[in-house]
Amino acid sequence: MFYDPRDDLRPAPLTHNPLNALVAPRPIGWIASMSASGAHNLAPFSYFNAVSADPPMVVFAPNEKVGGGAKDTLANVRELGEFTASIVSEPLARAMNETSKEVARGTSEFDLAGLIGAPSRSVRPFRVARALAALECEVWKIVALPSGPGGRGSHLVIGCVVGIHIDDALIIDGRIDTAALAPVARLGYFDYTVVRDLFEMKRPD
Amino acid sequence: MFYDPRDDLRPAPLTHNPLNALVAPRPIGWIASMSASGAHNLAPFSYFNAVSADPPMVVFAPNEKVGGGAKDTLANVRELGEFTASIVSEPLARAMNETSKEVARGTSEFDLAGLIGAPSRSVRPFRVARALAALECEVWKIVALPSGPGGRGSHLVIGCVVGIHIDDALIIDGRIDTAALAPVARLGYFDYTVVRDLFEMKRPD
Repeated sequence: MFYDPRDDLRPAPLTHNPLNALVAPRPIGWIASMSASGAHNLAPFSYFNAVSADPPMVVFAPNEKVGGGAKDTLANVRELGEFTASIVSEPLARAMNETSKEVARGTSEFDLAGLIGAPSRSVRPFRVARALAALECEVWKIVALPSGPGGRGSHLVIGCVVGIHIDDALIIDGRIDTAALAPVARLGYFDYTVVRDLFEMKRPD
Repeated sequence: MFYDPRDDLRPAPLTHNPLNALVAPRPIGWIASMSASGAHNLAPFSYFNAVSADPPMVVFAPNEKVGGGAKDTLANVRELGEFTASIVSEPLARAMNETSKEVARGTSEFDLAGLIGAPSRSVRPFRVARALAALECEVWKIVALPSGPGGRGSHLVIGCVVGIHIDDALIIDGRIDTAALAPVARLGYFDYTVVRDLFEMKRPD
């Protein structure tokens, strides 16, 4: 089938917008931020990826809440210009999902999910202490994206990585052991996957 | 371990920049573009993701070539303002890797990898005929990212999805069957994974 999503986001036989199932698997940035008044926030975003290796840069895109209004994360990164992105390994999947709950601003999802926030080195937001890896980031630019007919705008937060935490046990022969990291990724709908198997393809000469 | 990548991209014991292994698995946008003179180009990018569901938008980030100079893809999307992103299912993995080869501008990676380009509906670049899904996109904005000490700049290409192709066989009960799509994703180094298993976690109330 073919359709133009500007006309209809989910024509028959589709019952859901297929975009998130097609652009998958998406890595999860478990984004911690802090308000100017010092309240900590933690929420997962799968509109998240690296965009540059040197200097290391990442993006994530908080969509607006139903009914409008920026998510706490967006408000916080605007206020302080800093965030961390913790990596979600398989044993943290359920806690990550707990932190996706919509709660009043000022409620810490760290507490809600029984997680300990570890202090960062270069930025004020915490990171997830149990995460095997985490990135400390400074906001480089925030780009407002166009709103759809549904009225839920999105923003693209572009950040520079200014600190990298890695559990030493993950490093084997100078490289990250991906099977040990066992990263959780987002698929369409409410589906997730865990990376367990990998294969290598060298770039052709 | 902790380090600041602004000081050193890979301090001991790391032998490689770990960013791509930590921000993983990354979905692959198999980006087709066309030059103003009509030459077709096809190359895979894993600095690729959705960033908005409504309207559907995607980003990808072509890094500069070693020694400087924009990749053909970047030059083409600047010229025509259009691209397609085909989805790489498992049987297309080797062909996708073939198209990552650096070749002279004007050489079609479709031909190089023995792939047929199917015409698009709303944009001029082709899509991969054998791909089970593909997105037709118009460039919304191109953001130049800062250059690192290595001197290889990157750009963030932000696009609006103006057409979605889906093989009807992928749609089961109104949703995409991810196991049937079997998307290939990029990990660190030269590693890849294929999504085969998934699990569901509903968002908590």
